[in-house]
Amino acid sequence: MIRRNGEHPVEKRENMRGGNGTVEITALEKELLPAQCRLFSKIVLRPGCSIGVHEHTGEAEMFYFASGEGTVTDDGVKIAVKAGDSMTTPSGHTHGVENTGSEDLVIIAAIARD
Amino acid sequence: MIRRNGEHPVEKRENMRGGNGTVEITALEKELLPAQCRLFSKIVLRPGCSIGVHEHTGEAEMFYFASGEGTVTDDGVKIAVKAGDSMTTPSGHTHGVENTGSEDLVIIAAIARD
Repeated sequence: MIRRNGEHPVEKRENMRGGNGTVEITALEKELLPAQCRLFSKIVLRPGCSIGVHEHTGEAEMFYFASGEGTVTDDGVKIAVKAGDSMTTPSGHTHGVENTGSEDLVIIAAIARD
Repeated sequence: MIRRNGEHPVEKRENMRGGNGTVEITALEKELLPAQCRLFSKIVLRPGCSIGVHEHTGEAEMFYFASGEGTVTDDGVKIAVKAGDSMTTPSGHTHGVENTGSEDLVIIAAIARD
């Protein structure tokens, strides 16, 4: 099944997980996802925007930073990240992410059962 | 867990699934993946290179085309794709992909149980 650029559902979330500003999530519809996967999406954070720190339970999330730069909070530790880096957050761990750069921070994210 | 650009294992596969040329796969190590996920990777196909048609069983694969353009074979049907498009291949279905453009075709791929 092909979904063209522009055909994917786009959700704009304000203050996501207690973060700042708006997060734009371009996602595959649930019925297109593998049974053990609940998210495969492009996440765009404009400068200054963030997703607040939160925990994943029974699932793990993987981030691939496609462009831009930012600061993640990885189990309470702040770390600078940029394009080409990846981040994994297993079940029982916490993370958050903030765009601390001057361009959009673009993340490809997937969540699967863990 | 952060993996920096350049720290991920990179595998170069020749004639992958019967395809042409070399496919470069930059992947997360297995121990970093969710239990129900067996791949989260960046796949780079240089012009003319391809991954041959193959079936997924008991798992589904998701592609996000990050840059470039190419032609996929989706259950036997050839379809042109380009940056921003996505492709999903559920369990029991087949797919292949070829870089038919003049620049690298870059794909972010994930495979989870289905």
